[in-house]
Amino acid sequence: MNVFRRGRTEHFRTVTFDAGTNSVRLIEQRLLPHEFKIIATKDFRATARAIASMTVRGAGAIGAAAAYGLAQGALAFRGPGPKKFFKHGNLVFKTLAEARPTAVDPVNAMNDVCRQMKAGKTVAEQQSLALAAAEEFANEDVRHCGEIGRHGARLIRNGMNILTHCNAGWLAFVDIGTATAPLYAAQSQGKKFHVFCDETRPRSQGATLTAWELAQQKISHEIIADNAAGHLMQRGKIDRVIVGSDRVLGRTGEVANKIGTYTKAVLAARHKIPFYVAIPLSTIDWNLKRGFEIPIEERHGHEVLGAWGITSSGKREYVRVANPGSGACNPGFDVTPAELITGIVTPTGIFKPKEFWENRHRLGFKG
Amino acid sequence: MNVFRRGRTEHFRTVTFDAGTNSVRLIEQRLLPHEFKIIATKDFRATARAIASMTVRGAGAIGAAAAYGLAQGALAFRGPGPKKFFKHGNLVFKTLAEARPTAVDPVNAMNDVCRQMKAGKTVAEQQSLALAAAEEFANEDVRHCGEIGRHGARLIRNGMNILTHCNAGWLAFVDIGTATAPLYAAQSQGKKFHVFCDETRPRSQGATLTAWELAQQKISHEIIADNAAGHLMQRGKIDRVIVGSDRVLGRTGEVANKIGTYTKAVLAARHKIPFYVAIPLSTIDWNLKRGFEIPIEERHGHEVLGAWGITSSGKREYVRVANPGSGACNPGFDVTPAELITGIVTPTGIFKPKEFWENRHRLGFKG
Repeated sequence: MNVFRRGRTEHFRTVTFDAGTNSVRLIEQRLLPHEFKIIATKDFRATARAIASMTVRGAGAIGAAAAYGLAQGALAFRGPGPKKFFKHGNLVFKTLAEARPTAVDPVNAMNDVCRQMKAGKTVAEQQSLALAAAEEFANEDVRHCGEIGRHGARLIRNGMNILTHCNAGWLAFVDIGTATAPLYAAQSQGKKFHVFCDETRPRSQGATLTAWELAQQKISHEIIADNAAGHLMQRGKIDRVIVGSDRVLGRTGEVANKIGTYTKAVLAARHKIPFYVAIPLSTIDWNLKRGFEIPIEERHGHEVLGAWGITSSGKREYVRVANPGSGACNPGFDVTPAELITGIVTPTGIFKPKEFWENRHRLGFKG
Repeated sequence: MNVFRRGRTEHFRTVTFDAGTNSVRLIEQRLLPHEFKIIATKDFRATARAIASMTVRGAGAIGAAAAYGLAQGALAFRGPGPKKFFKHGNLVFKTLAEARPTAVDPVNAMNDVCRQMKAGKTVAEQQSLALAAAEEFANEDVRHCGEIGRHGARLIRNGMNILTHCNAGWLAFVDIGTATAPLYAAQSQGKKFHVFCDETRPRSQGATLTAWELAQQKISHEIIADNAAGHLMQRGKIDRVIVGSDRVLGRTGEVANKIGTYTKAVLAARHKIPFYVAIPLSTIDWNLKRGFEIPIEERHGHEVLGAWGITSSGKREYVRVANPGSGACNPGFDVTPAELITGIVTPTGIFKPKEFWENRHRLGFKG
């Protein structure tokens, strides 16, 4: 998407590959929204570190970073023959997979790359196929987000106010994003609308990343405290809610997403405001039978007890807000039942959660 | 309530009067939870400044501060006679009333003091009656909060988890508080329970003031992001919600309170969790006919765009969290409809919102 810097608007992807220097180029997301910086990882170990340290984060973006990292590792190989190359490839795969051990996207992406590499007869052919497969993975991520945007833009009409939670934007994917895709597509169709970004405590991804994205794209928006959405809905100031998801259960239509999503869905249902979830097909879990079984990560209390920001002297610092003697309870995600969800926007179209299972073959179910 | 400092537990009220030095003594609430400090205002102008600057805040506490401030101003008078004394009294009243122009409590409290002063025949008698009236106002605030606690403690059983929002604690009154009164009373009855304090963004009064209060009282508690309450309710981890209020409509039972209260009430209703509002009688508005007419203060966006806290070097600082190019929408309060409220805990007893009007004479209605 567009980024305004050095006096002009430039187009960026979150993750790209520079074949000339065999390096992966990433937006350093930990500096956003206060600084925009592209970093280059010079070898697969550096790429793994960038994934582990959350320089790059978000399902699609870390998938693409791992795919490129695997190609990068393969291309760096200078050895006698296929046997050593295979062994080296395993090491690269393992290093990248271990960077975010609970995430499923890097492993899925690298499995894709491995499958396509196998068609090569020589090391050189396999190296070249690895890069082509990684490029294809990234391009497919962009195409799928584009399709989500095409379907989702229908939901947005002139003059609407849209609420979103957390960041399921282009920074979390290679480009365009999922929850943001309908916004960007509607904008390109000339529609005028306003976005309320939930701050999304405790990590404030709405106030930092989503607001930054929308500002770069010149989309009208305001940040609100997570507490304010109910009041705005009560006063008729929100027409649609669109969020992303970390996992959608294909069998039940339940949606796991950033903590607070469930609250917004309950409020939207009370006010009869349509509530949409935008996802790529890779987010669908066809195995789990009940949302209650989704493990909810309990994160460190210091996220709730303070905040990261820029001080008056321009320094990035964590400040302790809460009473020093008190602790916090910090569940990272929640699960929204299907009954509260109006529709799920996928690259294949918009489905009611209850229609997921009957449409499973169109939605990528393999079983 | 109790404060632990200098190695021991001491009892404090939020607002007291020192007749020896004719000064009002206040907890400097802007330093909490990071520092506990008592300040003394030496004249009525300093007391007015303390009210204006929110050194003292909360309905009951600013009422008592204004009552004491009026007595302080009266006692400082050294003049020739009643006429000048009357003129001086008007100046004191006006100065204190203007400290928080939209608040109703300081004016109500000072009207009480004025009424009782009139029984005095000499300036000296009136001065002495003013102080007695101010003391009585503060003592009545404490008695009423005690009654709220006595009624509300019935709602709390051993092993329960209670959710509260914002700070309607003893720091907002002279002592004991309203939403916290049932907690303190239940504790003194030997009941064991756990409190979840909503952080209460954007000003974080739950994470700072309520958590500090509960820590001083040694009540088991954890701070949660405002986003987390829905998830905890869904998992059966919350048994009661108790909040305070800025205004309850006597005719409809609607409750205006800190932004986010409505959201918690909607969630509680969905999960069939009892939702209580604890208030003194002075919070009841018998005039307004519909909650929609309650003016909702739109506060400055910088509250949402950043946070106040303590840096690693121990300095109190505001950090900008949000994207620098983005603005915020910051409604300070919301209105919860009567249908979502299980009961309103008052010094007179616990009432359903719909029973308010029929019980209006017991609830202080004069009409």
